[in-house]
Amino acid sequence: MHGFGDARPAVLIKIATTHTPRSHDPNAAIVLPADLRETVAAALKEDVGSGDLTAALVPAGRLGRAKVITREAAVVAGRPYVDEVFRQVDPAVVVEWQVTDGDAVEPDQLLYRLSGPARSLLTGERTALNFLQVLSATATATRRYADVLRGLPCRVLDTRKTLPCLRNAQKYAVRCGGGVNHRVGLYDGILVKENHILAAGSIGAAVAAARASPAKVMIEVEVESLDELRQALDAGADMALLDEFSLADLRAAVALNRSHPHGPIKLEASGGVTLETLRAVGETGVDFISVGSLTKHVRAVDLSMRFEYAD
Amino acid sequence: MHGFGDARPAVLIKIATTHTPRSHDPNAAIVLPADLRETVAAALKEDVGSGDLTAALVPAGRLGRAKVITREAAVVAGRPYVDEVFRQVDPAVVVEWQVTDGDAVEPDQLLYRLSGPARSLLTGERTALNFLQVLSATATATRRYADVLRGLPCRVLDTRKTLPCLRNAQKYAVRCGGGVNHRVGLYDGILVKENHILAAGSIGAAVAAARASPAKVMIEVEVESLDELRQALDAGADMALLDEFSLADLRAAVALNRSHPHGPIKLEASGGVTLETLRAVGETGVDFISVGSLTKHVRAVDLSMRFEYAD
Repeated sequence: MHGFGDARPAVLIKIATTHTPRSHDPNAAIVLPADLRETVAAALKEDVGSGDLTAALVPAGRLGRAKVITREAAVVAGRPYVDEVFRQVDPAVVVEWQVTDGDAVEPDQLLYRLSGPARSLLTGERTALNFLQVLSATATATRRYADVLRGLPCRVLDTRKTLPCLRNAQKYAVRCGGGVNHRVGLYDGILVKENHILAAGSIGAAVAAARASPAKVMIEVEVESLDELRQALDAGADMALLDEFSLADLRAAVALNRSHPHGPIKLEASGGVTLETLRAVGETGVDFISVGSLTKHVRAVDLSMRFEYAD
Repeated sequence: MHGFGDARPAVLIKIATTHTPRSHDPNAAIVLPADLRETVAAALKEDVGSGDLTAALVPAGRLGRAKVITREAAVVAGRPYVDEVFRQVDPAVVVEWQVTDGDAVEPDQLLYRLSGPARSLLTGERTALNFLQVLSATATATRRYADVLRGLPCRVLDTRKTLPCLRNAQKYAVRCGGGVNHRVGLYDGILVKENHILAAGSIGAAVAAARASPAKVMIEVEVESLDELRQALDAGADMALLDEFSLADLRAAVALNRSHPHGPIKLEASGGVTLETLRAVGETGVDFISVGSLTKHVRAVDLSMRFEYAD
């Protein structure tokens, strides 16, 4: 079975050389999205386009340096995106980080220093900050949820409710925040929902059809009741999504899962869980709680770059 | 001069056949971003990838229909993005809209109906909703600010603090919400800031250098004081950004601008303006107030798709 990890992954970074949709090893390094370079290129293209008309007012040879600080408390994510922005704008720019992705930072804390051609620092400034402010927002939200679950084996899980074109970047930020990634997209996991069950005739038939799929991926079934959970267990599903279960039903689902001959499989609670209700849901014994608001809402972190000429 | 329009643009839609960074005609139709197709393609690629493994459980020939409703009040934006998602997933899908971009909608209101191959409806569902929930969020936030300024000639202006890869889409959503677009990127306007002034030696020298630029675009100068505003007027700038001026200084700036031989130019107030302080800033007589939070924060609109088989 392809399951989700239980442990908080260490924040180590390596560039993926091939497409790596998601690590199944809970202790693996946080792998960078394979589309990082093209995502950064697309963001630079829409901002810089045919050229930075204002930076052209600065003589080409002038050097500058800058400091980027956060104006508010946050969890940092997006460092490799910032690095890649300046790599693409001008490889002569040097970025010196004072923090690592996953770090909790305080108001006015220095995040990184820049030095190099002044024009290039000014041209890359906004795109770099835009990546860092949105990805840190996702990591910060994730950490808030992860902290509420601290001490429980339950982990917060993301969803496919993401910002278009930033799916992989946000999934990376969720990992930095201490969350676990659900499937990245429609291609790397099967989530059998009501409509698929209707088409197949039953949960058993849907899981059997999924098992026959040439793609060897995790098969999760969304269930609306304990009876449907039993059917999913009978059918040999790898994981079940418990949709809008009451706390009592979640506890009953955990017990059923433990006593079933095919169990225990991984259980995911989903549907309207808030920061206020999260701990109680986690205490029912489910393995995961998925939260759409981690990635669909953004409260951008307030960042500031202070620039000066070096000569 | 390339200025900003004063009137609220009508919500008419046409596809741009060439690159059209921003309309300077206040009564022009809201032009769709030229990168719409490639933005949608990138979002579909990250979600669908090598294929929707779960939709494959539904027989290829089955037909379906669906309704998408909003669960909360909002201003709609993103209709052409939804259309393009289904056009790219499967041109056999029919989308029937019940609302137009820019419409204010109520909780549980029907937004659009879908019909066509069931697999295709399910495959396109999430990408379509992700575009609509984020762009409607931007339009909804913009409308909230625009409404506060109602009755004043002052308009709300966006910034370059946007979601990476969604710059043009969010600028479109701002227009749908009743806001006005500032420059789209670094390539279609000159905004002379402190660093550029330092490099040129003075505001006058910076504006003269900008005027000599081969690109014939609007030249705006960011000023920190009334004295700097006077220098910008003397230099023949098209527009001035009044950075964190007090209300008294904003009023003095408006008066100076009206009495100056090169005035009046367009005045933009910027810096920490909130919904609470917006009206008072607008009443000083400035032409625009720029608000970063329109596009950097996202409170995704809660949408829901209800699907059924048609056969």
